[in-house]
Amino acid sequence: MAVKLHIPSEADIHPVAGVDIGIAAAGIRKADHNDLTVFRLGTHSRVAGVFTLNRFCAAPVQVCRTHLAQGQDIRALVINTGNANAGTGARGLAHARQSCEALAQLLGIRSTQVLPFSTGVIMESLPIERLVDALPRAVDGLGSGNWLHAAHSIMTTDTLPKIHSRRIRLGDETVTITGISKGSGMIRPNMATMLGFLACDVGLSARLLQETVARLAERSFNRISVDGDTSTNDSFILVASGESSVYIESVGDPRYAPLFDALAQAALDLAQKIVRDGEGATKFITVKVSEARNPEEALQTAYAIAHSPLVKTAFFASDPNLGRIICAVGNAGIADLDTGATRLWLDDVLVVNQGGRNPAYREEDGQRIMQQEEIQVHVALGRGDAEDTVYTCDLSHDYVSINADYRS
Amino acid sequence: MAVKLHIPSEADIHPVAGVDIGIAAAGIRKADHNDLTVFRLGTHSRVAGVFTLNRFCAAPVQVCRTHLAQGQDIRALVINTGNANAGTGARGLAHARQSCEALAQLLGIRSTQVLPFSTGVIMESLPIERLVDALPRAVDGLGSGNWLHAAHSIMTTDTLPKIHSRRIRLGDETVTITGISKGSGMIRPNMATMLGFLACDVGLSARLLQETVARLAERSFNRISVDGDTSTNDSFILVASGESSVYIESVGDPRYAPLFDALAQAALDLAQKIVRDGEGATKFITVKVSEARNPEEALQTAYAIAHSPLVKTAFFASDPNLGRIICAVGNAGIADLDTGATRLWLDDVLVVNQGGRNPAYREEDGQRIMQQEEIQVHVALGRGDAEDTVYTCDLSHDYVSINADYRS
Repeated sequence: MAVKLHIPSEADIHPVAGVDIGIAAAGIRKADHNDLTVFRLGTHSRVAGVFTLNRFCAAPVQVCRTHLAQGQDIRALVINTGNANAGTGARGLAHARQSCEALAQLLGIRSTQVLPFSTGVIMESLPIERLVDALPRAVDGLGSGNWLHAAHSIMTTDTLPKIHSRRIRLGDETVTITGISKGSGMIRPNMATMLGFLACDVGLSARLLQETVARLAERSFNRISVDGDTSTNDSFILVASGESSVYIESVGDPRYAPLFDALAQAALDLAQKIVRDGEGATKFITVKVSEARNPEEALQTAYAIAHSPLVKTAFFASDPNLGRIICAVGNAGIADLDTGATRLWLDDVLVVNQGGRNPAYREEDGQRIMQQEEIQVHVALGRGDAEDTVYTCDLSHDYVSINADYRS
Repeated sequence: MAVKLHIPSEADIHPVAGVDIGIAAAGIRKADHNDLTVFRLGTHSRVAGVFTLNRFCAAPVQVCRTHLAQGQDIRALVINTGNANAGTGARGLAHARQSCEALAQLLGIRSTQVLPFSTGVIMESLPIERLVDALPRAVDGLGSGNWLHAAHSIMTTDTLPKIHSRRIRLGDETVTITGISKGSGMIRPNMATMLGFLACDVGLSARLLQETVARLAERSFNRISVDGDTSTNDSFILVASGESSVYIESVGDPRYAPLFDALAQAALDLAQKIVRDGEGATKFITVKVSEARNPEEALQTAYAIAHSPLVKTAFFASDPNLGRIICAVGNAGIADLDTGATRLWLDDVLVVNQGGRNPAYREEDGQRIMQQEEIQVHVALGRGDAEDTVYTCDLSHDYVSINADYRS
């Protein structure tokens, strides 16, 4: 029941030179179901990532951080669904390392050149033997045309695969950007049971790559919320395979800005697709807060609205019970908020003016907009010129069903 | 579907000398339904209150603060359901003042001696004429035996009335404590669409009364969460009618400690009853966090657990998907948390030890406890000796139904 989630046709999904993908069914949690994905990266590749801020971060996240800190020569990724390998202590760490070792052996590289990723149930032991047994099959199938298969095989409670692909001109050269993501619950700022893998065939300096992945996350995966929970396993990885003739050393290169814009559109689309496929989502809601005194209070107000269960159930019901939105604004923690300066629009309808209901507001206008599948909430605080935007979905019966039945 | 919510029998509900209550059906939102409650307080009474921290606080809250700041001679309360008179701007303030003026005229007091309270839908105009028209009927019915009627007439989405009454010995004297509360959604720290009125016949100095109401709220209404939303209208009022022979000037009086304990038990019971009747609640959950470095991080960790929709849906499903609890602990914002020192118990069952699943933990033990109606989650952080406890409920289909249909 995803909200307007576009899946490109095969013809519009462009392989990225230097990136091969293989898939297998390891039976991690369920049989006969692709749950293991391997990326093999070419020798010119550079990789950078950002990871969950959850202190109970999963074993694979810990291993990713260690391997990335040890050098820039990452040559493979191994991703399993069905088990998060989180809350699994020392044994979980050993399992994550074992998966790297097994893949490294098959590919003839060092285990520290592999990054592991897991997503699924927390606090259950990873069936590492089944994962290791399935690796040769995934490696046998490595190919550049498997992006859509990979988008499928990293899904958990997702109902649809999430993929974005584009080509852009940079000077005389055409470069390719393709990425996939997964996640539909446990989603909030600083990421959540979400994985994102974005690759381009441009070459980037190590420093620029790291800076780019952080900036991309900040305006995409760190601006979405389904239920306010941040998972133990969130990871967003940017691969610059360096197979095209474009190499960018620093921000000053005139080709960087258009490349960054294209990467940012790709990352935002992959992030928004997670919200569009939010657990039980029936509406896609953009929450914009403007006229804040500083960026922090813009973001914190936007999240106060996006996280309110009462706001989210009102959207589910298509009920313009919009007092709940100003209630959320009042809870955003701005101690000296002048409520009389606050305005609220639903799309282009001015609902609240001078801290109260706009006299010209008619319930039927609110009703009309609440029935749309995509809605923008805009709150202007009248305190300054900072603004920010986050993306969320409604809270429905299906959210409860999905999360009550997840392990069944 | 409230969880073990005890309603005392009429014989166990003790009037408080100096407190009379009258009820009427004003038709604020629905016809033929008691929605207006008046308290008349005797001439020895003192009143203190604590109110919502929501910046969009309702008009009656603003008027309460002003009237309380103007003196200590509050002689009446007027409470309506069906409309929160919040997000109503200058007109809402005028309405709240009008309700005080009308009641003051009927009782022969000044309007600044009246405190107004409203609860219900936000951002709709209060039908003040209907409220004022019904006031004489409420005043006609004033009597000391109407506590249970009042508990009913302040209900909104509550399914059961919330009332607590007790008598205790202080020296040679028996004193009475009786109170009511309402609220079942929009509940979180610092209160939420909740109203609480607690009265005793003891006399207290103005300073001690104010200190007492703040301390009571801190360990009762500020320790509960249903859905993490803080309403525009929360108010907790403590009345000391001064009709008994007990007068307490300061904390040093040996009768203060036992009085405070009894008031604290009453306030905690009234607060817990709100959680027991939480919208759609099927379970009552106590979340205790111990071994924190300071009280702030104990509380913040307890709330991170109590607010997690994933934790709450797992409780609804009676599914010991307990990784979600450690995930919430990891999200509590303790930057230097040593996950290896963390332990988690469900009642007396040790589930997590040294940051991972306790090897001796058996799923059937978790399952058994998850099926109970009352469950204690206890997390020990291994960082110090501070602790705190909050009370919450599960997140069920009915929560979504109730909040999606609230205005229908």
